[in-house]
Amino acid sequence: MFEKNRVCELFGIKYPIIQGGMVWCSGWELASAVSNAGGIGLIGSGSMSADILKDHIQKTKKNTNLPFGVNLPLLRKDIADLIKVVLEEKVDIVFTSAGNPKTWTSTFKGEGVKVAHVVSSTIFALKAEEAGVDAIVAEGFEAGGHNGREETTSFVLIPSVKEKISLPLIAAGGMYKGISLLAAMVLGAEGIQIGSRFAISKESSAHENFKKKVIEINEGETRLSLKKLTPVRLIMNDFYNRVKEAEDAGASTEVLSEILGRGRSKIGICEGNIREGELEIGQVSGNLTKIQTVQEIINEIINEYIEVKNNLINL
Amino acid sequence: MFEKNRVCELFGIKYPIIQGGMVWCSGWELASAVSNAGGIGLIGSGSMSADILKDHIQKTKKNTNLPFGVNLPLLRKDIADLIKVVLEEKVDIVFTSAGNPKTWTSTFKGEGVKVAHVVSSTIFALKAEEAGVDAIVAEGFEAGGHNGREETTSFVLIPSVKEKISLPLIAAGGMYKGISLLAAMVLGAEGIQIGSRFAISKESSAHENFKKKVIEINEGETRLSLKKLTPVRLIMNDFYNRVKEAEDAGASTEVLSEILGRGRSKIGICEGNIREGELEIGQVSGNLTKIQTVQEIINEIINEYIEVKNNLINL
Repeated sequence: MFEKNRVCELFGIKYPIIQGGMVWCSGWELASAVSNAGGIGLIGSGSMSADILKDHIQKTKKNTNLPFGVNLPLLRKDIADLIKVVLEEKVDIVFTSAGNPKTWTSTFKGEGVKVAHVVSSTIFALKAEEAGVDAIVAEGFEAGGHNGREETTSFVLIPSVKEKISLPLIAAGGMYKGISLLAAMVLGAEGIQIGSRFAISKESSAHENFKKKVIEINEGETRLSLKKLTPVRLIMNDFYNRVKEAEDAGASTEVLSEILGRGRSKIGICEGNIREGELEIGQVSGNLTKIQTVQEIINEIINEYIEVKNNLINL
Repeated sequence: MFEKNRVCELFGIKYPIIQGGMVWCSGWELASAVSNAGGIGLIGSGSMSADILKDHIQKTKKNTNLPFGVNLPLLRKDIADLIKVVLEEKVDIVFTSAGNPKTWTSTFKGEGVKVAHVVSSTIFALKAEEAGVDAIVAEGFEAGGHNGREETTSFVLIPSVKEKISLPLIAAGGMYKGISLLAAMVLGAEGIQIGSRFAISKESSAHENFKKKVIEINEGETRLSLKKLTPVRLIMNDFYNRVKEAEDAGASTEVLSEILGRGRSKIGICEGNIREGELEIGQVSGNLTKIQTVQEIINEIINEYIEVKNNLINL
């Protein structure tokens, strides 16, 4: 299985399953668990200072001998400090997002680091290919957290990127089970990135209130919000409703920034304030019903993938 | 092929491909062509009076001996007149949308008419099942034209509906080629409904200007708009930009209704006013590059479906 899969080959992994690097969820515990289960665990540096990132990298190394990586939001002001840590610690996989891949890709490549870049459109995928990255993550509208302005969904984006790009393609957004992996492969991807389901895994460092809230909500209870600032998919809670009301009344970016305030994802995901926090999660949250270990999640995905693939002959 | 497919069995068709019933696109010419090619052609009654619908049904009968149907938007004020024509003409397939399936389903079933109902959420799918319909069409956020408020995409909606519903499931939104059909089946559907690609087929009655515009636009150039009225996916043209500007400034439903005016989809799709018309089309429009006959489209879809399915063993 996955013998000819270029994502597995590129990163030296057993299963083409990548854990999304998510603020307040994906520290060393989650990352090492995903890597130990045969996928790629990513430390989400979005909520970390350089020192904290260093600590998480060192702890991940202690807890897995298998490949893992760091997710780097390139627009961070202190991105150079984060990258310095990544290179010093000889992390050999990075997933970059939210910024221009041209700026840092050659630095990484010069140090032998494999680079995947996250995009929300075919145009950005072409730019990333031009910048010399090793793989593309195409993220659809249904994904949680920060997202593109084009609102293109996975069903449309995957074949569209695949048609223009020859690099290994990883699909993100709407991915949570074995049939997601198989369907993404049918559409042209060679792997998937899973966020939401790992965000509420046992090993996720998110607050228990957040995990329970994700399980409680039903289909259709997330929205892409704050489009006048940076679009972000979140749960429709009290905070969301205030934003929505302001947006419907034509609020300016200044007013919206004031409503957003600072550290709101920390308040929600890390500290567990379900009403007032920014609860970033994908549309698949409506289909998630339990907190599981990473190993259970990966086992279920692979078993379902094999079963459905073997039954396809009957379609 | 498709021997165990319940959509094919239910409607007595060769391929589980249903043409969307689209205003100003799907008259007798398109519907009969799709039926003749082995799918289900649907006359889109949304833009027709009862008399015109009758004429299109009679012409479709003259041009195909294979199963075809009528799409009925249940919220139309004169829906009873349209349904009277459908029953008098002994059309035996209807696809209903935009309204409560309870009101008319028993009438249809009493006359031996097969009913599929279009939904945008699992909750509505359950209600349709309860109303006694024969099949469910689950339409994702990426679909063109009028759409649900939940914004759930096909990648999330298909497995979600499948988990709760035992009826044959048809996936709509983002469907345009052989891999769309196979991926939708992997996710739990037994057929797909295609809108955009048929909207610009040779047999579509849409204006040439509209077809050319659909081919010209790139990925990411449609948006779900007019959410304060009824959400509709359309091309980002001058009309869209005026709506967007008003929405960003907090326009009321009254102001938006005034900007919309009357007959704007006719102005765009039927009369070919590309700047000022309401150009309803799906996200896949960015991936469409040519005007083809229905037969060419169906051949390409089936050939790709077979090829990719046969190669799946290597994944």
